[in-house]
Amino acid sequence: MKRYDKYDEFNKWYEDVLQYAKIVDKRYPMKGSYVIMPYGFSALKKMKNIMSKLLDSYGHEEAYFPLLVPEKIFKKEKDFLKGFGGETLRATKTFLQELDEELIIRPTSETAMYPMYSLWIRSWRDLPLKIYQTVNVFRWETKMTKELLRVRELVAFNESHTAHASAEEAEKQIKEAIEIYKKFFDEIRIPYDIFKTPKWETFAGAQYNYDFFTTMPDGKAIELASVINLGQKFAKAFNIKFMDKDEKKKYVYQTCYGISERELGVAISLHGDNKGLRMISNLAPIHIVIVPIKKNNENDKKIMIYCEKIKNMFEGTKCGKYKAEIKVKIDNREIRPGEKYNDWEKKGVPIRLEIGEKEVKSKTLVLARRDKLTKEKIKEKNIKESVKKIIKEIDKTIYREAKEWHKKMITKHKTLKDALKRLRNYGGIVGVKWCGDENCGKKIADKLLGSAIGYKENEKVEGKCIICGKEAKHWMYFGRTY
Amino acid sequence: MKRYDKYDEFNKWYEDVLQYAKIVDKRYPMKGSYVIMPYGFSALKKMKNIMSKLLDSYGHEEAYFPLLVPEKIFKKEKDFLKGFGGETLRATKTFLQELDEELIIRPTSETAMYPMYSLWIRSWRDLPLKIYQTVNVFRWETKMTKELLRVRELVAFNESHTAHASAEEAEKQIKEAIEIYKKFFDEIRIPYDIFKTPKWETFAGAQYNYDFFTTMPDGKAIELASVINLGQKFAKAFNIKFMDKDEKKKYVYQTCYGISERELGVAISLHGDNKGLRMISNLAPIHIVIVPIKKNNENDKKIMIYCEKIKNMFEGTKCGKYKAEIKVKIDNREIRPGEKYNDWEKKGVPIRLEIGEKEVKSKTLVLARRDKLTKEKIKEKNIKESVKKIIKEIDKTIYREAKEWHKKMITKHKTLKDALKRLRNYGGIVGVKWCGDENCGKKIADKLLGSAIGYKENEKVEGKCIICGKEAKHWMYFGRTY
Repeated sequence: MKRYDKYDEFNKWYEDVLQYAKIVDKRYPMKGSYVIMPYGFSALKKMKNIMSKLLDSYGHEEAYFPLLVPEKIFKKEKDFLKGFGGETLRATKTFLQELDEELIIRPTSETAMYPMYSLWIRSWRDLPLKIYQTVNVFRWETKMTKELLRVRELVAFNESHTAHASAEEAEKQIKEAIEIYKKFFDEIRIPYDIFKTPKWETFAGAQYNYDFFTTMPDGKAIELASVINLGQKFAKAFNIKFMDKDEKKKYVYQTCYGISERELGVAISLHGDNKGLRMISNLAPIHIVIVPIKKNNENDKKIMIYCEKIKNMFEGTKCGKYKAEIKVKIDNREIRPGEKYNDWEKKGVPIRLEIGEKEVKSKTLVLARRDKLTKEKIKEKNIKESVKKIIKEIDKTIYREAKEWHKKMITKHKTLKDALKRLRNYGGIVGVKWCGDENCGKKIADKLLGSAIGYKENEKVEGKCIICGKEAKHWMYFGRTY
Repeated sequence: MKRYDKYDEFNKWYEDVLQYAKIVDKRYPMKGSYVIMPYGFSALKKMKNIMSKLLDSYGHEEAYFPLLVPEKIFKKEKDFLKGFGGETLRATKTFLQELDEELIIRPTSETAMYPMYSLWIRSWRDLPLKIYQTVNVFRWETKMTKELLRVRELVAFNESHTAHASAEEAEKQIKEAIEIYKKFFDEIRIPYDIFKTPKWETFAGAQYNYDFFTTMPDGKAIELASVINLGQKFAKAFNIKFMDKDEKKKYVYQTCYGISERELGVAISLHGDNKGLRMISNLAPIHIVIVPIKKNNENDKKIMIYCEKIKNMFEGTKCGKYKAEIKVKIDNREIRPGEKYNDWEKKGVPIRLEIGEKEVKSKTLVLARRDKLTKEKIKEKNIKESVKKIIKEIDKTIYREAKEWHKKMITKHKTLKDALKRLRNYGGIVGVKWCGDENCGKKIADKLLGSAIGYKENEKVEGKCIICGKEAKHWMYFGRTY
């Protein structure tokens, strides 16, 4: 067990909590596949909406491109094909016939979108073009799969693809994308660092890319999002040209960036505690659960009526920047209150109200909060304001703890031995001095039994490369990754 | 040309308008496939939201089941396999390997969902189970495809699947589903009739089903939605059992029902006019376009400022039952106002505001409405109320015209000859007297060169079957269908 492990045992915790809280059910009869259940889907839908609203507010438009790509189109960009040609699925027949041409099931949609971009973009007036879609994509992973985090069918792949008239505008778009993603991760309370990916780990067909990274509770680093400058490679492969103001035909400059349901898996992992889930208000399918404490007597009816009254008080009440409605559920199942408490605590509902005879009489409710597992008494007349305040506080507690964890898990080291020891004992993301040479970078990764994550562009470094002894250019970061 | 044709030529109108208004682009380099463009996707998203909200309000929960189904699972229910075994796509390999088992790309999700239902349903307490998803499904149509209406990849297939403890409860669910769909079609202003499908046309594996039908502007009938009572066939094939209150293990009773983006295609077709699209407020991506009438002089800036002011007045203003925000766009392109008028009329934006020097001075705007293509003057201080009123009126005009068309296109006939003549000259849905016998029904369909659509359950009939002369049981309806 690692000293900094947030949970007694993360992997078991993750599997248990996802199944128990009905986020997913992995008993679907196909390896590496699973069902996203209503409770999980509701959180995912909220996450998708936050992303859509952000992209829309920055002038992106949503569209839908086909899942299937004809083989000859898929093969047009050689580096891309090298990157995605392996584990990509192909449809070859129906029950009645072999297809004339094999169809590729998209692992990502560059090759579905860019033939259309070459038809849509004619003049500088058509630029910039900023389109996104939220779709299912397939990567027939042969490595170990893990629900939401590493999967064969990504069901909420949100991919943006832009085209621009100049390299400068594409660079500006990269900055905008980073700004959007920063806001997004702030909204879903995931702390991160942004790294520029070293050349040899860059997205297939791209010029360069930035990755958002965080550390999971088991100490492994995980890529949250990728922001990619594609340069003109795809423009040349797919013939995407425009007539510029100077009446010359030029290839466009492209960028793309994406996130997926992986973010939900990360949020769940970073926000929970040993007891189970802890849902932040922006993702919570239910914000308040009301548990009636019945005694099997004539007062039970009064209690239920009072519970309904309290529930109705929240009708139309909103919280947070995206004005999510506060969802209230009355749990009227025929099981003991204690079982219900335990159930909803595991499912991470931020607030529980307990209402029995005494509470109805005194018009004072017992409120239990999920962050600290403490109870307090709240007067009925203050309930709405108190709940709004406490929901905010819970979000803050959860976020603060996640940020503390993140800060602790990113460290710098003077020697390889030191870095290796750190990764072995605690995991996380470790930085060492590096000259900028690919061979040295790969050597460090090998010695650390990890991957090169990247460097922070504006971070200053002084000293020598830990491998070759030449002058260091960057603090370069490594980790064992998902 | 048929006398009742709404358009000079529907097929050309449909292709032109979908491409011109950027609903779809069918130049995607794969037969029968196309891209849903931002303007079309926005309308589709609104449609999806209306359906989701309706289903949620009736206690359904949204989930996500995998796109791929292992072959042996797909083949479990024999009638279903017969129905869907033909044109269904199969994934067989990656670039690296042949798959161990062929994977079926869902044409609909019974076989993906029901193995999970058999795990989830244990006791009568778990019932009813009412789940839906909105996903892409594939039907490798060999017939002529048509954008949104008959396609290979349905991208917004909304399918609900329910399970119940008794046949009666399943029947009740069928009634609820019909109620939901009635509300849905009212919201998107599509008139319909509901028919019970004759035995030999029933959904593969089902006990019986009802279909919502309407008539397209070319006189062809089109199925809008299907509400299906599955009985216990799938429960038996997938072993979905529950422990009832009497402590006996029983198979559940199931229903399913679905709609898709086809509804958007139908709405576009029925709502438009010879000029182009006419968007109802519940589907319109943009409700108001503001066209500044600039003169290339010092007043232009004032005009733009005033346009912005008017736009901002609508910030947060909502319309309709689903409280859709009124979306306003200022068209500031460097083309003549007349071109803009034409453009937005074709795209079906309900209201256009024209603002030039005169309007800025007099604080009186010119408002053009899309339903009647007329203009009127509106004082700035009344603009919000007037717009809300006129949007409602436009919805009403469009709906009224669609209903008149629908009424005209469903007729009853005494003789086969008469019915055939009607179908030949006008199309639509024709009713004739029928004894209830399958052979007679199929004979009528053959003679009319059409399909049996179904009968209205509560419609009275007196007289003889048009084929065998036995006593008629139903007015049976036929049509040439999509």
